[in-house]
Amino acid sequence: MTYNKITDDILTAIKQIVGEDFVVTEQDGLERYSHDETEDLRYYPEVVVKPAFTEQVSALLKLCNEHLIPVTPRGAGTGLSGGALPVMGGLLIAMERFNRVLNIDEQNLQATVEPGVVTEEFMNQVAAKGLLYPIDPASKGSCFIGGNVSHGSGGPRVVKYGTIREYILNLELVLPSGEVIWTGANTLKYSSGYNLTQLIIGSEGTLGIVTKIVVKLIPAPTVDALMLASFNSNDDACHAVSAIFRAGIVPSALEFMERRGIEWVIKNDGIAFDLAEKDVAFLLIEVDGNNQDTVFTDCEKINAVLEGFGCTNVLFADTATQKEELWRIRRVMGVSVKANSVYKEEDTVVPRAALPQLIKGIKEIGTKYGFESVCYGHAGDGNLHVNIVKAKMSDEDWNTKLKDGIRGIFELTVSLGGTLSGEHGIGLVQKDFMPIKYSPIHFELWRGIKNVFDKNYILNPGKIFNQE
Amino acid sequence: MTYNKITDDILTAIKQIVGEDFVVTEQDGLERYSHDETEDLRYYPEVVVKPAFTEQVSALLKLCNEHLIPVTPRGAGTGLSGGALPVMGGLLIAMERFNRVLNIDEQNLQATVEPGVVTEEFMNQVAAKGLLYPIDPASKGSCFIGGNVSHGSGGPRVVKYGTIREYILNLELVLPSGEVIWTGANTLKYSSGYNLTQLIIGSEGTLGIVTKIVVKLIPAPTVDALMLASFNSNDDACHAVSAIFRAGIVPSALEFMERRGIEWVIKNDGIAFDLAEKDVAFLLIEVDGNNQDTVFTDCEKINAVLEGFGCTNVLFADTATQKEELWRIRRVMGVSVKANSVYKEEDTVVPRAALPQLIKGIKEIGTKYGFESVCYGHAGDGNLHVNIVKAKMSDEDWNTKLKDGIRGIFELTVSLGGTLSGEHGIGLVQKDFMPIKYSPIHFELWRGIKNVFDKNYILNPGKIFNQE
Repeated sequence: MTYNKITDDILTAIKQIVGEDFVVTEQDGLERYSHDETEDLRYYPEVVVKPAFTEQVSALLKLCNEHLIPVTPRGAGTGLSGGALPVMGGLLIAMERFNRVLNIDEQNLQATVEPGVVTEEFMNQVAAKGLLYPIDPASKGSCFIGGNVSHGSGGPRVVKYGTIREYILNLELVLPSGEVIWTGANTLKYSSGYNLTQLIIGSEGTLGIVTKIVVKLIPAPTVDALMLASFNSNDDACHAVSAIFRAGIVPSALEFMERRGIEWVIKNDGIAFDLAEKDVAFLLIEVDGNNQDTVFTDCEKINAVLEGFGCTNVLFADTATQKEELWRIRRVMGVSVKANSVYKEEDTVVPRAALPQLIKGIKEIGTKYGFESVCYGHAGDGNLHVNIVKAKMSDEDWNTKLKDGIRGIFELTVSLGGTLSGEHGIGLVQKDFMPIKYSPIHFELWRGIKNVFDKNYILNPGKIFNQE
Repeated sequence: MTYNKITDDILTAIKQIVGEDFVVTEQDGLERYSHDETEDLRYYPEVVVKPAFTEQVSALLKLCNEHLIPVTPRGAGTGLSGGALPVMGGLLIAMERFNRVLNIDEQNLQATVEPGVVTEEFMNQVAAKGLLYPIDPASKGSCFIGGNVSHGSGGPRVVKYGTIREYILNLELVLPSGEVIWTGANTLKYSSGYNLTQLIIGSEGTLGIVTKIVVKLIPAPTVDALMLASFNSNDDACHAVSAIFRAGIVPSALEFMERRGIEWVIKNDGIAFDLAEKDVAFLLIEVDGNNQDTVFTDCEKINAVLEGFGCTNVLFADTATQKEELWRIRRVMGVSVKANSVYKEEDTVVPRAALPQLIKGIKEIGTKYGFESVCYGHAGDGNLHVNIVKAKMSDEDWNTKLKDGIRGIFELTVSLGGTLSGEHGIGLVQKDFMPIKYSPIHFELWRGIKNVFDKNYILNPGKIFNQE
C-alpha cells in the first residue's frame, strides 16, 4: 500500500473532529509518542490526536481510510514489542482521554470501561466493592486496559484465574470504515456466530480500535499468603513448578526470578533483601482463598513439594508491607534490568514442564553468542521473559549477530512445543521471527482476516506480520 | 454456490481414500445420519464417510473442494440446533472413528484427544489421574468433545471453572483445501498473531474440520457438596442466583429448574423425588474445593442467602448416590420433556441479574401465543434453556405462528443485554433470528472470514448465517 501524507486540509479536518487542543503537531509534543518501552526505538508520527469519544474515533478513521493515511492506535505506551510505534508516520491516535470507568455493575459482576483506564486504578475501584479483576501485568500502575486487550496481556494471576480472554466479554469496536459495532454480548458466554470479541483480543490494533470494554468480575478472595522459595539452581526451581500442580494445588501466582534480577532490583530500587550466597533462583508463590486454614494447608503442601526439589529456604511474608515488597521486587525487575544495562526483552512461552530445558538452552545460546540474560516470569504458565543483557558483547556483535541468538531462543522455544510471546505481543520487533512457528498457510489466513477488516491497510501497518 | 452431486467417479475416489468399509450409501445406513437431536428434522446426505486419520480428512476435503461437493462434518449427532444436518446433501463426514485419547500429559496437565472421543469417557480417564476437565454438557455421556469445540459448549461448571475457550489450547485443523495446520501452540496462553484457535471454537464446522484437540487440565477438587433449594416462584429463585455471587461465593454449579421439568423427569425416568405442593422453582447448587470445612462454610453462607429470597426448603445430598440422582434429574430434563410432548428447544443467555425478567417475559410470550414452556439451565451463567411445549396449541399455530413467539423470546433476550445461544450454537434452526442481535456489518465480517477459509463454500453450508 502506498500511503499519503497528512496535508494541511486533512489536518484541518482532524482539528474539526476533536478540537484544536487535542491535536499535536510540533516536534516536542510528538516526541513522547515516538517511542514505547521497547528498547530505544524511535518513530515519529506526523500528527498525534487525542479523541475522547467513539464518534470522534469513527470520524478520524473514516477520514484516514478515505485518504490512505496510516493510523497507529496507542494506549499508555508501556508495550515491549513496539506495537504502538508509528513506523509509517501518519496519524497516531492516543487513547489517553478514554479514561472513564463507565459502570461497575454489582448485580451482574460486570464493568464497562474505556480503553484508556489505567489497569491498577480499575482494579482498585472494583476491589473497593469486594470484587476482583485479576489481569494485572507488571506494568499495571501505568498500562491501560485497552493495551492489555490488544496484546492479550496476562500477569501473575492467570495461572489460577485464567487469561484475559476469559474476562473480556464484549468490545465496542470502530472499524477502519468508521462503522461502530459491539463485537459480542454482555454475557458470560455465547455461541452465536464467529467470535469477534476473541478475534480482536491480541490483534494489536490492526483490525479496529476498541472504544469500550465490558469485563467480567469475580468475588475477591479474602485471604492470601505469599512465600519466596530459594534454590541453588534454575533447574531445581523450574522442576518444582510443575510438581506443585501435580500435588493438586493451583497457586494464585507462581513466579520465577533469577538472582541477577533481584540483585539489580536491590541496587536500582533500594529494596532491602538478604540474598544467601549460593541461591541463584527463586519462586514467588501466592495462594489465595476465603479461608485462612485452607490457605495455610496449601502453603504447607507446597512447602513439602519444594523440599523435594532442593529448596534451600522459604520466606513467608508476615505482613501486608512485606507482601508488597516481595511483589515489588518481581514487578520492577524489567525496569531495573533496563536501568542497569543495554538490553532487549524477549517473551517466550512453553508447556510448563519444559521450563527447565528452556532456561538451560537460553543460557547455552548466550554462551555461544556472548550475551548474558536475566530470566523471570510467570513460571506457572510456562511464560518466561528473557532479558538479554549486552554485558561484554561488542557493539558490532550486539547490532548484527545478536539477532541470530534471539532466533536461536525462539527456535528452541518452538521446538519445546511453545511459541513466541505469551503476553507481550509481536508488534514490530518479534515480527521477523514469526515464520519459526507459523507456516505460510497461517500468514495467508491472517492476511485474509486483516483484509476483511481493513481493506486499505491503514490500521497499525508493519505490525505482527506482513499484512499485505 | 451451485454444488455438484457425488458421481460414481467421486464415490470411487472416496472409497479409495477411506476404504470401502467406511463408506455408507444405502438409505438404511444413511438414516442415522439424517437427523440430530433437533426437533424431528430430517436431511439425507448422499454419502456418509467415516475417516479415522487426518490425512483421510485432508484428501476428502481436497476432493470435495475440487468438485464443489458440500461437506457436513458430524460428531455424535447430539446437537440441538441442527448444525450437523446435511441440508445440501453431499458428503457427510462422520468423526466417530476419531475416538482416541492420544496422550494425557501429567507433567504439563494437558491432553491431546481426537474429536470423536465421548466427553464423559475423557473426563473419567483424566479423573482417574486426579485431574479435571470441567466442560461437561448434559449430554456428556454421548456427545463428542469435537462437537463441544464446534459449538462452544458449556455445561454446569463453567460458572466456576470458565468456558471451553479457556480449556482448548490448540487444534489440528484441516482446511477445505486439504491443508493441515495447528491453529496455535500447546501453551496456556499466547499472544502471537490472530488467535485462530479461538476463531474455530464455536464456528460449527464451517471453517475447517478439527482432527486433534489439545486441552488444558486442572487438579481435581477433592470435596464437593450438592444441595437442592426449593422456591414458590421463579422470581424468587432467579433473584437468589445473583445474590449468591454478591455474597462472595462462586459455586461450582448453579442450575435452575422448573417444577414441570422435574415432574416429567419423575414420570419418564422413574426417579423418586417428593415435590412439595407449592414449590415451582428449584436451584441445584454445588460447591467444591479441597477442604471439607471450607465447602461446608460456603454451603452455610449460601443457605443464609437463600433464606432471604423465600427459599422453602434446602435438601442436602448426603451420599454419592443421592448426588448422582439429583444431577440426573437435571441432566435428563431435556430428554424427558421431549418424551412427554412435541417441543422446540431454544437457548438464551443474558447477564445473570436479568434472569427474573427473562423468565417472566417468556411466560408472557407463551400466554400470548398459546404455548407452554419448561425452563431450566445454567442460571449462574445467565444461560436459560427454553423448552417450548406444544400443549393446547393447534398444529397450524405450532407450524406457523410459533415462529413469531420464538422471535419474541429472542427479542426479549437481546433487549436484556443477552444474545442467541449460550452454548447450543445457531446451526440451522436459529439462523433466521440472528439479525435480531447482529447488524449487517457483523454478517459482512463473518462472510469475509468464511471466504478466507472456505472460498468454495463447501463446509457446512446453510448454517449460522447466509455464508455467501
